[in-house]
Amino acid sequence: MNILIINPNTSEHMTAKIRAVAEATKRDDCEVTIICPARGPVTIESSYDEAYAIAPTIDLIKQANEEDYDAIILACFCDVGVEAAKEISSVPVFGLEETTLSIALLLGSKFGIMTEKRPRVAMKELHVRRHGLLERMASIRPLELSVAELDTNPEGTKAAGMALARRMVEEDGAEVIIMGCAAMAGYSDDLERELGVPVLDPVKVTLKVAEAMVDMGVTHSRLGLYAPPTPKEFK
Amino acid sequence: MNILIINPNTSEHMTAKIRAVAEATKRDDCEVTIICPARGPVTIESSYDEAYAIAPTIDLIKQANEEDYDAIILACFCDVGVEAAKEISSVPVFGLEETTLSIALLLGSKFGIMTEKRPRVAMKELHVRRHGLLERMASIRPLELSVAELDTNPEGTKAAGMALARRMVEEDGAEVIIMGCAAMAGYSDDLERELGVPVLDPVKVTLKVAEAMVDMGVTHSRLGLYAPPTPKEFK
Amino acid sequence: MNILIINPNTSEHMTAKIRAVAEATKRDDCEVTIICPARGPVTIESSYDEAYAIAPTIDLIKQANEEDYDAIILACFCDVGVEAAKEISSVPVFGLEETTLSIALLLGSKFGIMTEKRPRVAMKELHVRRHGLLERMASIRPLELSVAELDTNPEGTKAAGMALARRMVEEDGAEVIIMGCAAMAGYSDDLERELGVPVLDPVKVTLKVAEAMVDMGVTHSRLGLYAPPTPKEFK
Amino acid sequence: MNILIINPNTSEHMTAKIRAVAEATKRDDCEVTIICPARGPVTIESSYDEAYAIAPTIDLIKQANEEDYDAIILACFCDVGVEAAKEISSVPVFGLEETTLSIALLLGSKFGIMTEKRPRVAMKELHVRRHGLLERMASIRPLELSVAELDTNPEGTKAAGMALARRMVEEDGAEVIIMGCAAMAGYSDDLERELGVPVLDPVKVTLKVAEAMVDMGVTHSRLGLYAPPTPKEFK
Amino acid sequence: MNILIINPNTSEHMTAKIRAVAEATKRDDCEVTIICPARGPVTIESSYDEAYAIAPTIDLIKQANEEDYDAIILACFCDVGVEAAKEISSVPVFGLEETTLSIALLLGSKFGIMTEKRPRVAMKELHVRRHGLLERMASIRPLELSVAELDTNPEGTKAAGMALARRMVEEDGAEVIIMGCAAMAGYSDDLERELGVPVLDPVKVTLKVAEAMVDMGVTHSRLGLYAPPTPKEFK
Amino acid sequence: MNILIINPNTSEHMTAKIRAVAEATKRDDCEVTIICPARGPVTIESSYDEAYAIAPTIDLIKQANEEDYDAIILACFCDVGVEAAKEISSVPVFGLEETTLSIALLLGSKFGIMTEKRPRVAMKELHVRRHGLLERMASIRPLELSVAELDTNPEGTKAAGMALARRMVEEDGAEVIIMGCAAMAGYSDDLERELGVPVLDPVKVTLKVAEAMVDMGVTHSRLGLYAPPTPKEFK
Repeated sequence: MNILIINPNTSEHMTAKIRAVAEATKRDDCEVTIICPARGPVTIESSYDEAYAIAPTIDLIKQANEEDYDAIILACFCDVGVEAAKEISSVPVFGLEETTLSIALLLGSKFGIMTEKRPRVAMKELHVRRHGLLERMASIRPLELSVAELDTNPEGTKAAGMALARRMVEEDGAEVIIMGCAAMAGYSDDLERELGVPVLDPVKVTLKVAEAMVDMGVTHSRLGLYAPPTPKEFK
Repeated sequence: MNILIINPNTSEHMTAKIRAVAEATKRDDCEVTIICPARGPVTIESSYDEAYAIAPTIDLIKQANEEDYDAIILACFCDVGVEAAKEISSVPVFGLEETTLSIALLLGSKFGIMTEKRPRVAMKELHVRRHGLLERMASIRPLELSVAELDTNPEGTKAAGMALARRMVEEDGAEVIIMGCAAMAGYSDDLERELGVPVLDPVKVTLKVAEAMVDMGVTHSRLGLYAPPTPKEFK
Repeated sequence: MNILIINPNTSEHMTAKIRAVAEATKRDDCEVTIICPARGPVTIESSYDEAYAIAPTIDLIKQANEEDYDAIILACFCDVGVEAAKEISSVPVFGLEETTLSIALLLGSKFGIMTEKRPRVAMKELHVRRHGLLERMASIRPLELSVAELDTNPEGTKAAGMALARRMVEEDGAEVIIMGCAAMAGYSDDLERELGVPVLDPVKVTLKVAEAMVDMGVTHSRLGLYAPPTPKEFK
Repeated sequence: MNILIINPNTSEHMTAKIRAVAEATKRDDCEVTIICPARGPVTIESSYDEAYAIAPTIDLIKQANEEDYDAIILACFCDVGVEAAKEISSVPVFGLEETTLSIALLLGSKFGIMTEKRPRVAMKELHVRRHGLLERMASIRPLELSVAELDTNPEGTKAAGMALARRMVEEDGAEVIIMGCAAMAGYSDDLERELGVPVLDPVKVTLKVAEAMVDMGVTHSRLGLYAPPTPKEFK
Repeated sequence: MNILIINPNTSEHMTAKIRAVAEATKRDDCEVTIICPARGPVTIESSYDEAYAIAPTIDLIKQANEEDYDAIILACFCDVGVEAAKEISSVPVFGLEETTLSIALLLGSKFGIMTEKRPRVAMKELHVRRHGLLERMASIRPLELSVAELDTNPEGTKAAGMALARRMVEEDGAEVIIMGCAAMAGYSDDLERELGVPVLDPVKVTLKVAEAMVDMGVTHSRLGLYAPPTPKEFK
Repeated sequence: MNILIINPNTSEHMTAKIRAVAEATKRDDCEVTIICPARGPVTIESSYDEAYAIAPTIDLIKQANEEDYDAIILACFCDVGVEAAKEISSVPVFGLEETTLSIALLLGSKFGIMTEKRPRVAMKELHVRRHGLLERMASIRPLELSVAELDTNPEGTKAAGMALARRMVEEDGAEVIIMGCAAMAGYSDDLERELGVPVLDPVKVTLKVAEAMVDMGVTHSRLGLYAPPTPKEFK
């Protein structure tokens, strides 16, 4: 099978990190292609960044639907553009956030989300409320590191993530930890070993779910929320 | 005071209708300017349409913040781009949807939303859940008319709206009706007179709230959900 | 336009403070009249106090409906009598609490409410639950000052409010602060400047919303929750 | 033990009906006294009616606390004044509505409430939301009979109640029916026999719970929501 | 009346303690019989323990329905088997947990639950969510004592319970404390006296409610959740 | 990899059907073993049936943990024993219900569940509430066929399922249909083709998710809800 992973930001470095995780995670019978848009922000840390990432990302989705992919993954934990992508895709589309939340529900009573910076906490909570999953949320806590720092200082990121995850488990009742940023990819195994709770790397989780759903031949609903858009004039 | 109203779609006809309502609604001491982007979809009826409407809209928001406006209104009931707009605006920004929902809470126990077409029902319900207001929602029902039809067939629109609103009141327990589409602007008074419940025209409601908030000198929070974005490279 | 503000307690001092805020807040084309009942408690800090404040307040509402007012404001953050008032009023009635909560939703992801004393926290939370808005509440925290103290010690009140509001922002995730007591009127601008988040004075907010709604000509629903009462014998 | 039942309306006829049910329901070791205020509305069907019923009712509560009662029941399904009554009572106070809802939770997955007239549906739903029990509510449906009719036409009331309850069971999933009006007292056994689900008469349920709680020696919390009011001047 | 209390674990010591509380609590006209299964775990502290306690408990329920009991109490705060028991019982069945939660709603705005050990916190919260009562929950806090310790060290248990309950009241806003373990039976009066809030002993509460419901002649619904099982082959 | 599927009922016929679906669904590198207990009910349609199915099922879970399985599936849509199984398993355990609900969240805004008979509707809704997923549920509707009929009348089952699913889509807003009974396995593809929405066969979905999770090496949390039980005496 062929799975396309679109990193909605324009960082080649981040795209390469996602590629490394995906290559190490994928099944042998799965080919993964990882791309990112040519235009748009190099990291996505705000709704403003999302506003400029979404159209280039949807352009890639359109193009992908004319090629031979079995599934598409939007590899940003913000799930930017995931509804629009599903509206125009006949192959299944999976956002990192929605997929990781769904799997977290299976692994423990409540999940905790590590995010980058304090202002993203409110946005993440809005997303959880949007998904109707607030009753399963233990907490969302910020690493207070920039995405750039996360990207360049792996040891500091790992140590900060460890301390934060421990606090979420012991104080907030989190039974599953979600590493809520594609840039944090790569440290989940170490964290899991030390904490004794599942630590979910959204890229890994989403790729495994995508492979499984392709196997099963299921696609998202084309009635209702993801109904194909009515054709119309675009100026 | 000066209020800028941005119609996020590119329909000059719709922009003119919004202008007519705004001019008829505004206070004498309020100047309103109504604009729309040069690029993007002529109507916004899907997440796909939103994906291409948002960046041109945010471009207008950026430009507006360098001019002399006291408040900005995003005049689409989908509130496309409203979080991004608030992040970059030092003047208050009001979306039609969020503002009309807030005012509806004051006028009755439960609100009903009329929307255009069936697929938008799921999206509207998602928005209400996102705002944490599901317990105050009576129902969302579709007119099953295209935005184009709404735009060109005023009598049919009005009759369909009347029948639908009556059903929401009598069967669903709606005590306030929200006309969930900027294109439906202009019929609220007639509907209200016949139904005996408030019928809210989002453009009117939002303009009155914006004027009031400008008077009061309040702006949205700049911590948390609407924190200004970190500067970064855009490719 | 003519707006009547009823202070449901019998404190002339508090009534004068509300008058001062209202006079400083109102539009030039708005006349405000501020009155309070002759009978009833001098402050309203409990359901018991409310029980004796409500009938004299509703008497004033009845009288007001025979006079020439365009809107009525019930100027206690407990919203005592607001449903009964709406049932018998053909002009719009606004409670401080309901109106300020509605506007707070527009200004940030979550609101925090400052109240007087610890026992009022449970009552305030009951009100927020009653309005179906728990998902948007960050916290309710008590100043632990009596209404009398709030009334006579402005500096202490302001300092206590500042410290408390800061805690609500930093620890609880409040993005908007509501000063949950009419007696706290007058300090919102200073607090806002220091905290960097909107600090809502319910009297100001409600008066501005009332003016805007009068402009718009909207009245609360007369079907359902606020249906006019059936005439009957009163012994 | 001695239990005082206060009918908050001023109808001697209704008071007598409550007395008959209470006398037939009470344990042998329980003395019940049923009274009603001298002033106030003869029926309570609106918030307006409640506004004038509450002070006379609380007067009776105060007086009762100086006498030798072991518990007090507020015998209106609207629970008018129940928070104020608990604030000033050292003996337990039980409202019909709160008590019947609590017991209904034990007897089936979801409850349905029969109420008098359509406008009361919104108020009842507000009460259920206030109690945080919406997830256990099947429906609230109106008999569309006035309290006076309920009072004078027992056969019609019974037949209408039967048809309505059947609809709530079969269409709405109600597994327990609550007769949401003190005036409907007396028909629960017949309804129960025909429907095959529990049909709760609030006066019966509340009296049995009150007896049990007196036996147990438990009183409502005096911290938080029901904290005793601060003494103050009443004009 | 005759009430059967089934302790679902196999501890004779615990059964004797429940018997002592029940004998001291019951009315003179009530005979109580307290039994426990011959097989199964000596304490129930996990879902695993429940898995082996449930069939022996349901065997006792079946047998009890052929004898002359007026009501059955399942005397474990986990309510193990309570749905199955109701499905096959023509007499009312009461679980400690469901009954105590229902009564707690009447006594204060929010309840706090003391449980044995940290892992039970997640299970208790699941139960509260299952009952749809999360909005009324202040907190669940663990004593961090084993059921065995609770059973053998009464002074330590009482002191730990006191400190924990105080914290739940002062920090979490609990207005009612539920002693969420049958083994804690016996200390509620002392705790209540010192804390000033109701402290509910589930055995006492449930026995009093059961007596009251037998008096009233009400049984749980036999449609829906508790519908009698279809007869079938058991291997 | 080796996956064990335990059918918690004792029907060899049902076990064979699950085996057929699993064999047709599994990956080539996955060995599936399908077993059922020797004792217990032949179908599980009530809490009573569950009470007698759970211990034999947990016995099989214990035994499986001493063998060489990579994951265990509990193949009943009631998820009987799933918490107990997770408590004692070092390999991941997946219930059909929890897994299918999680995947349904990814495929549409709201899910609908087809169940066997009317009384199971209340139980299913209880399960959805327990999972905190009520806001994502469109409806639960009963086929009104016995599990035995489902088992022996495939054409009737399929036709009834088709009509019911269509109603859930058109009237209730379901965008994903869950076939809430292991016995309905085998018809999902046909239904999906005709309805145009995903129709999830829980056995298929859960097997694909289990394979994916084994690939990823993730196990459920061993802190909190699924903490290993304390060793103790079993009589």
